Amino acid sequence: MNAPVRPKDLPNGSPASVTTGPVQGSKKVYAQVPGRPDIRVPYREIALSDPKEEPVRVYDPSGPYTETDAAIDLEKGLAPVREPWIVGRGYAAVKPRDVKPEDNGFAAADKLVAPCPAERTIRRAEPGQMVTQYEFARAGIITEEMIYVAHRENACREQMLERAEAALADGQSFGAAVPPFITPEFVREEVARGRAIIPANINHLELEPMAIGRNFLVKINANIGNSAVTSSAAEEVEKLVWSIRWGADTVMDLSTGRNIHNIRSWIVRNSPVPIGTVPIYQALEKVGGDPLKLDWEVFKDTLIEQAEQGIDYFTIHAGVRLAHVPLTARRTTGIVSRGGSIMARWCLAGHRESFLYERFDEICDIMRAYDVSFSLGDGLRPGSIADANDAAQFAELETLGELTKIAWDKGCQTMIEGPGHVPMHKIKVNMEKQLRECGEAPFYTLGPLTTDIAPGYDHITSGIGAAMIGWFGTAMLCYVTPKEHLGLPNRDDVKTGVITYKIAAHAADLAKGHPAAQLRDDALSRARFDFRWEDQFNLSLDPDTARAYHDETLPKDAHKVAHFCSMCGPKFCSMKITQDLRADVLAMEEAGVVLGQAKPLSEAEREAGMAAKSQEFLAEGGKLYVDAAE
Amino acid sequence: MNAPVRPKDLPNGSPASVTTGPVQGSKKVYAQVPGRPDIRVPYREIALSDPKEEPVRVYDPSGPYTETDAAIDLEKGLAPVREPWIVGRGYAAVKPRDVKPEDNGFAAADKLVAPCPAERTIRRAEPGQMVTQYEFARAGIITEEMIYVAHRENACREQMLERAEAALADGQSFGAAVPPFITPEFVREEVARGRAIIPANINHLELEPMAIGRNFLVKINANIGNSAVTSSAAEEVEKLVWSIRWGADTVMDLSTGRNIHNIRSWIVRNSPVPIGTVPIYQALEKVGGDPLKLDWEVFKDTLIEQAEQGIDYFTIHAGVRLAHVPLTARRTTGIVSRGGSIMARWCLAGHRESFLYERFDEICDIMRAYDVSFSLGDGLRPGSIADANDAAQFAELETLGELTKIAWDKGCQTMIEGPGHVPMHKIKVNMEKQLRECGEAPFYTLGPLTTDIAPGYDHITSGIGAAMIGWFGTAMLCYVTPKEHLGLPNRDDVKTGVITYKIAAHAADLAKGHPAAQLRDDALSRARFDFRWEDQFNLSLDPDTARAYHDETLPKDAHKVAHFCSMCGPKFCSMKITQDLRADVLAMEEAGVVLGQAKPLSEAEREAGMAAKSQEFLAEGGKLYVDAAE
Repeated sequence: MNAPVRPKDLPNGSPASVTTGPVQGSKKVYAQVPGRPDIRVPYREIALSDPKEEPVRVYDPSGPYTETDAAIDLEKGLAPVREPWIVGRGYAAVKPRDVKPEDNGFAAADKLVAPCPAERTIRRAEPGQMVTQYEFARAGIITEEMIYVAHRENACREQMLERAEAALADGQSFGAAVPPFITPEFVREEVARGRAIIPANINHLELEPMAIGRNFLVKINANIGNSAVTSSAAEEVEKLVWSIRWGADTVMDLSTGRNIHNIRSWIVRNSPVPIGTVPIYQALEKVGGDPLKLDWEVFKDTLIEQAEQGIDYFTIHAGVRLAHVPLTARRTTGIVSRGGSIMARWCLAGHRESFLYERFDEICDIMRAYDVSFSLGDGLRPGSIADANDAAQFAELETLGELTKIAWDKGCQTMIEGPGHVPMHKIKVNMEKQLRECGEAPFYTLGPLTTDIAPGYDHITSGIGAAMIGWFGTAMLCYVTPKEHLGLPNRDDVKTGVITYKIAAHAADLAKGHPAAQLRDDALSRARFDFRWEDQFNLSLDPDTARAYHDETLPKDAHKVAHFCSMCGPKFCSMKITQDLRADVLAMEEAGVVLGQAKPLSEAEREAGMAAKSQEFLAEGGKLYVDAAE
Repeated sequence: MNAPVRPKDLPNGSPASVTTGPVQGSKKVYAQVPGRPDIRVPYREIALSDPKEEPVRVYDPSGPYTETDAAIDLEKGLAPVREPWIVGRGYAAVKPRDVKPEDNGFAAADKLVAPCPAERTIRRAEPGQMVTQYEFARAGIITEEMIYVAHRENACREQMLERAEAALADGQSFGAAVPPFITPEFVREEVARGRAIIPANINHLELEPMAIGRNFLVKINANIGNSAVTSSAAEEVEKLVWSIRWGADTVMDLSTGRNIHNIRSWIVRNSPVPIGTVPIYQALEKVGGDPLKLDWEVFKDTLIEQAEQGIDYFTIHAGVRLAHVPLTARRTTGIVSRGGSIMARWCLAGHRESFLYERFDEICDIMRAYDVSFSLGDGLRPGSIADANDAAQFAELETLGELTKIAWDKGCQTMIEGPGHVPMHKIKVNMEKQLRECGEAPFYTLGPLTTDIAPGYDHITSGIGAAMIGWFGTAMLCYVTPKEHLGLPNRDDVKTGVITYKIAAHAADLAKGHPAAQLRDDALSRARFDFRWEDQFNLSLDPDTARAYHDETLPKDAHKVAHFCSMCGPKFCSMKITQDLRADVLAMEEAGVVLGQAKPLSEAEREAGMAAKSQEFLAEGGKLYVDAAE
């Protein structure tokens, strides 16, 4: 890791830093797309110590922060890599909406964090002007974002195709159709069918485009949010940087309270991944926290505010309808989604239909103009095993299916939020119903948590469910940290949550039969079998922890090349024994010695027949090579 | 937690302690079986703060150590609760085999740990004398152990049956047949069919009997083992006590090296759970660590040695046959089981069939005489995703099926070891094949690990697979700690491994449709919804961690009754909002107000029709109760 970048002190912020430098044992590489000097795709390359082993390139959402000599200036923001593409599409520059005191939670002047000074032109499409990836895809146009995504998704595929022996794809896909190789045209088709989205607000020029869809790598989302004691923008950016360093593909900013508008500007300008938000949170803040004071005007204003800032997807809880509220009354844990409970309160108090539902067309029009993708919120997701798959949850999902079609008609990219607490046997039907109701729009699920009884370990209760629903077809998994239900996650909790979800996503990719997923498993397992400890650490999802755990017992450098480990010690190592075995068996095969026999020999047979072979073996000094010609 | 018991210093041991006292928020209770003063069954009872909530009784393998005033004396061992039962069966006392220097790894006199001084009569059944639970079950006899197990397994069932609303069992069982209530006769039938075992050596009088079988609660095993720097018997006993405190149902002692015979005596005499071992490890030590020097005599002697000490189950790698060895030669990670690699080496070097396979009848005769259960070892389990479900693995499983029938014919209780590294889509076929090949004998699996790429997090990669295979029918899950592949687990790692596997086992019970599993989830979720923080902590698998995480953000006692938590703060709490909602909706239902409507109203309809209701609501002071008579 390099010395952390120390940005200039920010107004009202303590001096802070963001983490830069490569992940241990890796280096950032960029692949230039042939003929497209404007498109270069990032990977993380893990070099291996065995000259027979090719370096392993892995998908890398961490952005420029993990470059070897990362030049990060938070005030300037990341390089606007998409600018030439967006400029080329000819959108009108618009004068941004004026920032209002309520945008920053009425922060007093002496507590106000300054906005990120990076200057960007704000753009918006005209009615009728193509702007969303969905519209381009439907029109048969391959965008730069689609080309980028295609190359990015091929991370290990080229290597895998070169290795004939590794070209297996024996997974069970449940109807997913992951191709051997991803072409830009394939990306276009998937986006056009609504089966994938590329969340990419035209005002988020710093974005490294990525796809969320069942036929791409399973993605993960990490949530960040301000805490009451923090007012430094750099600290908030660091939460983003830390999440993506370990593999978060998108980040949702769930901040509330003071300074959220200005801090959001720092986050978006410095984010290479799509940023999602839940605009109803900020809208509620603007009306003093009282759900009954919410109305369409303040919500609409918030959508425009955040769309202009470059937010890539919005959670919109438009599926919580008045008629659904009574369905939650007898639940064990009622409504556990914040957005869901706010809207249910609003509906019930006024005995009126949700304005998000009634104004859905208008919401589409706003979001389309910037290509903000929908994440149709699951405001009625179950908060306990008892409430899983109940009438409220599924009624909402049916409404989300109805809204998906409207969003598509309006040209918007759309994904659907799901699960919560669901026992294992009720997971699959969620996926099947979602695919059916929502026309295969990407599913984006929280967990699901497969039991309620382990607060403090809900990354694990939910990692189980996440792996399974990812296998069944969920496109993106929203992480859960160990602090879920208990408190605010700290830095270690965020890392644990991200790594757990990378495990779930990768386990899902393997099980789906992703053609290149196993390359990394195989490389790591070969390293393990060969006692290449450094390679094993570096190929792991968290090299720092793998190395630290190893070094607790065997810290010396010499042990990094030792042909044993601390579990069994040198005498007892099954890997060592089996390496010797392998050499023997292969030599015998070559020599034409037949080892397999259907039944054990009798005592007499063994003594008579086998003693001779045994003698040969011993005569050869313990090596089993016996030349066939002898 | 009480002050730790400090046993007298042991020879060559540092002063050490074992952990005693109840788990936070729980107390140990014993239920006396009516008419059987000799049978009292332990539970852990979690009292709740809400007077409407019954205490929750949970299955508890932790033994007397978690009693409120635990009187533990390691030198005396635990009370021999099974003594009257075993005495009643009339086995001959035998003079135990003499302890030999090699039994303790030739430990020098000044390094020799003294054996546990607890005096026990050593017994062995005569040929033809019924001794195993299997033999009794087949003869239609219900043993005390079966009665004990039946009551123990009913832990939450009585409560669940009383609560009509909670009596759901909507799981997917994959052919398991978990009854609403467990009777001693049901236990007998399951044991007689070979579908369950009660590992219970007649020389382990301190055992609290438990069952391993697909139609009982899913169990978990924790491994312990000596480390080179430890010579205190109390430290080794503490590893056992710590594992069972958090929920390990059985413990395998995988120690090697010096003092293992004598330390084993301390472990067994102080263990309320079945202890398993892998006798080939000790046999190998006795011949100086060279697999080629192993023979039947030293192995047989080791079986008798450990059977006399009271070990409840032995892992026997009799399925690793000479013909299987070549099947492993092209694997990515060869043979990763220690026992498997030792036997493969032995077979290959002499070009001879495994003596474990050839002498299997004799092994049965020895184990039967003490009722030591078989755990037929999976010496060829896959050590990487690449090797999952390959010819070697399945050839061995077929052999284990053949051996299962022999073991049953010989009167022995038998379970089968399985998995290792297996991607999700290849898990189910393992279970199906095991059930088919092994006549539904209980399956006991390591993980499986669903990806290779996360050393440092293999409790999670394997927790995913363990939950799934437990759901599919595995009876016992062998834990994996975060240090797997990297080093020796410490105390925290053991706890993390046990809790992770309790999650997997419980998630499996829920998904199978265990009739009482959800009681605890429901109780915890009600506590969560009611903001009963203490109850939520105490109902969790790890109250200490749940409380500590909560207190990191909101340490004050007042917050333990606060109607919000640190995630959203008081204004934003969805649970709070939804509690209010619930009251409103239920009141409206009572009042006959119809809320549900199929379509949203038009603007005009809403304004006309709904404004009135809204006014009613406001007139009622924000509460929605409107009397039907009005």
